[in-house]
Amino acid sequence: MPERTILLVLEYDGQDFVGWQKQPGKKSIEAALLEALRIITHTDILLTAAGRTDSGVHAIAQTVTFVTDKEIPAHRFAPAINSLLPPTITVHEAREVPHDFNAKRSSVSKRYRYRIYQGPERPALDRGTVWWHRKEIDLDAMREGARHLIGVHDFEAFRSVHCDAQHCTREMFSIDILKSPRPPKGSYIDITVWGNAFCRHMVRIMAGTLVEVGRGYKKPEDIQRVLQSRDRRQAGVTAPPQGLTLLEVLYDDI
Amino acid sequence: MPERTILLVLEYDGQDFVGWQKQPGKKSIEAALLEALRIITHTDILLTAAGRTDSGVHAIAQTVTFVTDKEIPAHRFAPAINSLLPPTITVHEAREVPHDFNAKRSSVSKRYRYRIYQGPERPALDRGTVWWHRKEIDLDAMREGARHLIGVHDFEAFRSVHCDAQHCTREMFSIDILKSPRPPKGSYIDITVWGNAFCRHMVRIMAGTLVEVGRGYKKPEDIQRVLQSRDRRQAGVTAPPQGLTLLEVLYDDI
Repeated sequence: MPERTILLVLEYDGQDFVGWQKQPGKKSIEAALLEALRIITHTDILLTAAGRTDSGVHAIAQTVTFVTDKEIPAHRFAPAINSLLPPTITVHEAREVPHDFNAKRSSVSKRYRYRIYQGPERPALDRGTVWWHRKEIDLDAMREGARHLIGVHDFEAFRSVHCDAQHCTREMFSIDILKSPRPPKGSYIDITVWGNAFCRHMVRIMAGTLVEVGRGYKKPEDIQRVLQSRDRRQAGVTAPPQGLTLLEVLYDDI
Repeated sequence: MPERTILLVLEYDGQDFVGWQKQPGKKSIEAALLEALRIITHTDILLTAAGRTDSGVHAIAQTVTFVTDKEIPAHRFAPAINSLLPPTITVHEAREVPHDFNAKRSSVSKRYRYRIYQGPERPALDRGTVWWHRKEIDLDAMREGARHLIGVHDFEAFRSVHCDAQHCTREMFSIDILKSPRPPKGSYIDITVWGNAFCRHMVRIMAGTLVEVGRGYKKPEDIQRVLQSRDRRQAGVTAPPQGLTLLEVLYDDI
């Protein structure tokens, strides 16, 4: 049968894995998916993910493409793969896309959410999906700081020193910061970032830096200075992975 | 020091426990709390919980009272207990209440939420907190069915045959059924039940029966007939525990 390109939309609980990328002897999302596809197609498959999430980082709708010459209807892939995956990964959708489509290269933008829980004691039910802060965080200050990150910038100060991208000029379309009650005693603060692409740890460093603004350790206008410094040490801490979720990968019509 | 009564507000992830009640050699919420209080007070404590949740059932704000003669300021209990508990339990609040106050007997009503996820594939991130349904569920039919449960009724047909309450005449103040999108492919259906008290498995049997109405296996008006039958076999299945969360226990001003 001729080769077809298949797109998968994937949810996973990052707590259960060392991250997207396969590593010898470790439990990665990529390895779990490759193993399932090997059983289904009887061939070795090459996977391309839109975002290589780190250990502990979650996804609601990661996208992955692969090429196969097996005669399996696209809609059969999701239930077949799910029956072979641990309950911490789900394929929500599988469909055929144009042959030259690539989950990473074809993507035009992505949305991530960084979730903070603010309250006097840790939240038991959300322990794996939030960054807990005991002290109050000033949302207005965070929002004012975030405005400086919108648009096209060189985000050199906001990427890991181990990032292997050639440069970190990226465009941020929006950063929304919303607070909602989280009974019985706390609140969620959700930072939703929409941008054309992201460097390594970029959303987590943004979140860590904006929290320093919200806590009063930095001023909103300092964000401008941090950007211009192009120096990672001028930004805030890298927020812990469990608060981060890849929400959506956007494409032009396919 | 004179005896004081302390009220705790407790969150927990039911997946980690055999339920509220202690059982020899098993991991219960009560046993974890008793062990922490034994270390803090150097005495054996008697706990009274507002609701004895089953294995797998969660709580956002369970309430518990105990009596102690130790000279520990009430506000110190929450951080002290939390430092001794696993991350799957949190004490959000601790305060002194009138001596004759009792978490169970003094409660005037409780709110529970039963959460369903409706979508073609299972949700990985919520696997421990929802009941997954692949097929569409008719909310209007569920709501029409739920109306018959509002008010004072004998809920004999809606309690476990192992329930040890003397009778099951209870008052339901409201049953709200809300649908919200759950990206990328599904929806949450939340059944929030507010009533003066509940028999064993009552919310789960209500949820199971209302889903049968929503799926078309029962008619909304059948709920009336089931109530009148006082026969457990006339109601629907007991919905699985992981979808259930004790949201709130209400008291008159204390």
